[in-house]
Amino acid sequence: MPGPTRAERNRRLADDFRIGKRPALARAISMVEGRRPGVADLLQKLLLARPQARRFGITGPPGAGKSSLVAGVATLLRARGEKVAIVAVDPTSPYSGGALLGDRIRMNDLATDPGIFIRSMATRGSLGGLAATTREVVDLLDAFGFPNVLVETVGVGQTELEIASAADSVAVVLVPESGDGIQAMKAGLMEIADLFVVNKADRIGADRMVREIQQALALRAGHGMQGVSGHHGVDLSRPDEADEEPGRAHAPAWEIPVLKTSAGRGEGIEEFLDALLAHNRHLTESGALEDRRERRARSRLRDVVVGRLRGRAERFLASHPDLPVRIADIAAGRATTYGVADELIPAILKGTEKSDQG
Amino acid sequence: MPGPTRAERNRRLADDFRIGKRPALARAISMVEGRRPGVADLLQKLLLARPQARRFGITGPPGAGKSSLVAGVATLLRARGEKVAIVAVDPTSPYSGGALLGDRIRMNDLATDPGIFIRSMATRGSLGGLAATTREVVDLLDAFGFPNVLVETVGVGQTELEIASAADSVAVVLVPESGDGIQAMKAGLMEIADLFVVNKADRIGADRMVREIQQALALRAGHGMQGVSGHHGVDLSRPDEADEEPGRAHAPAWEIPVLKTSAGRGEGIEEFLDALLAHNRHLTESGALEDRRERRARSRLRDVVVGRLRGRAERFLASHPDLPVRIADIAAGRATTYGVADELIPAILKGTEKSDQG
Repeated sequence: MPGPTRAERNRRLADDFRIGKRPALARAISMVEGRRPGVADLLQKLLLARPQARRFGITGPPGAGKSSLVAGVATLLRARGEKVAIVAVDPTSPYSGGALLGDRIRMNDLATDPGIFIRSMATRGSLGGLAATTREVVDLLDAFGFPNVLVETVGVGQTELEIASAADSVAVVLVPESGDGIQAMKAGLMEIADLFVVNKADRIGADRMVREIQQALALRAGHGMQGVSGHHGVDLSRPDEADEEPGRAHAPAWEIPVLKTSAGRGEGIEEFLDALLAHNRHLTESGALEDRRERRARSRLRDVVVGRLRGRAERFLASHPDLPVRIADIAAGRATTYGVADELIPAILKGTEKSDQG
Repeated sequence: MPGPTRAERNRRLADDFRIGKRPALARAISMVEGRRPGVADLLQKLLLARPQARRFGITGPPGAGKSSLVAGVATLLRARGEKVAIVAVDPTSPYSGGALLGDRIRMNDLATDPGIFIRSMATRGSLGGLAATTREVVDLLDAFGFPNVLVETVGVGQTELEIASAADSVAVVLVPESGDGIQAMKAGLMEIADLFVVNKADRIGADRMVREIQQALALRAGHGMQGVSGHHGVDLSRPDEADEEPGRAHAPAWEIPVLKTSAGRGEGIEEFLDALLAHNRHLTESGALEDRRERRARSRLRDVVVGRLRGRAERFLASHPDLPVRIADIAAGRATTYGVADELIPAILKGTEKSDQG
């Protein structure tokens, strides 16, 4: 007897998802993470709804205490009767993987609360697709009915900039001793931060760090954001890397606060949550939320379109009988990569136009 | 009077490059880094030659002393009368940028030697295009006539895996105290390492680190490489992220050595260089070098093809008059990203087929 078809399985999964069954949510997320066949079809079924959730992103360097802060904020939201979903994105450097796992475990107090959903995404090997996957997972959590989604990401390389595109409000968490204040300014973190948190504020240097960030913010305001946004949009020939998302404009009335917390001691968490909520209200009331959602939609559409074209190219290259000869020509210097690419592209464009999934 | 056309400028640049003028090399590299218009045309002119250089990759975590090792190896090669080019690739984490600059400066002893060419690539904001750019820069250095190219990369995220695709022989540099031995095993570094170096070997724990790496290598040999290669190739629907390059097979006769160095004290550098040269000879004599070059050519061809399709999609999306409406539909949940992508793709494929540069 044949099993259910993919379409049938997707329909059942969508039905279970809509009536709030947790296993269906977990399974849908796994399908997104694994880019399983049929995922595009499933998302079409599940995501046709106006976004509702507040989407908070928390980023910062390894060891800044992001997990503790997130756990604190989630606990407070639960105490106020609100459901919370947490997505912990770990770009798993080969050198920092261990420390993060420890942070994860500390979250376990929350893991038994049915009003909380926690998902860790270990993303080694999926960099590039990470931002798209995270956005879709957050969309799923939103569609499932979580009114609050916290996205925690480790700032490594430029991951934290990409991840900002999954959140409406972004908090950048720094710690006093690491000289991150100045680095943050260099790195374009200022462009994504809607608020700054100096965590471990009981340590030496916290007040200096707060002042440094405030000075940099003042400087930036005075320069109309120039000088810090130099690495976005400089290269017009590669618009994929000059994403409009991270460099998004702030509505004029929002002043970026710089908060002090001590997540370990439970200090400042309430103020942090209130600042996040205030920013969300600001976005809604100013209309900036719609702008951000449209930018996100644009960026995601581009990713999906490019992903499909890439899939098309991959399938063509995998099946092209002359390819091994042309590859050998390139390797031996008898042809150039660009020359062979120019030969192949017309055939890739003209190939069969069946729709591809994922 | 009109200035020279792009084709004329490229021809002059190519002429200067071929007769060994350094400014032409530097300019060609800048064109590759900046993805300037005409770069594909220029590379077609310059790269039509059989690869000659030994390409050594040196990677490892921040602070492992890679720059000192590279400087040591370069100095030795110079003492043996060989020219050397160094490409230092820095994926500039917002949190580690400063330290690296310090490393760079220590290389300055070499900077005045005309037999050495050093190029730092600060790559923040170009992740994704980094591997392609690095490979092309190395190709240029090879074509210019450097018989040895050292590519130094900081291992952050999976950058070090990508960068392996620019080198024939990859040395992974670790330090005793950071527990990197075990992390390296997890992270797939074993798959790219042709040799391991435990640097700062005068510190406590160096011998234990060497043993740990050797044990992990023995374990891997016993398991036919399974268990460590799990994150490659698991996701068939996204072959771009299951690159064959990093997971390339080693020719059977090569036993991965684990060396100890103390770059600060100048100890072990000669043995390190000799191991690199031995690996290069092994690749040449076993025929594995051809295999690696063909894999590299395949991976690069895919990147160029996908890059051109991406460019095509970008230009289409930027000029499509209905796009703002459809974006607003997605943002408001009236349409899904996948649905709109399916609408647009046929038109993107059918668009004008002019060749695009870069």
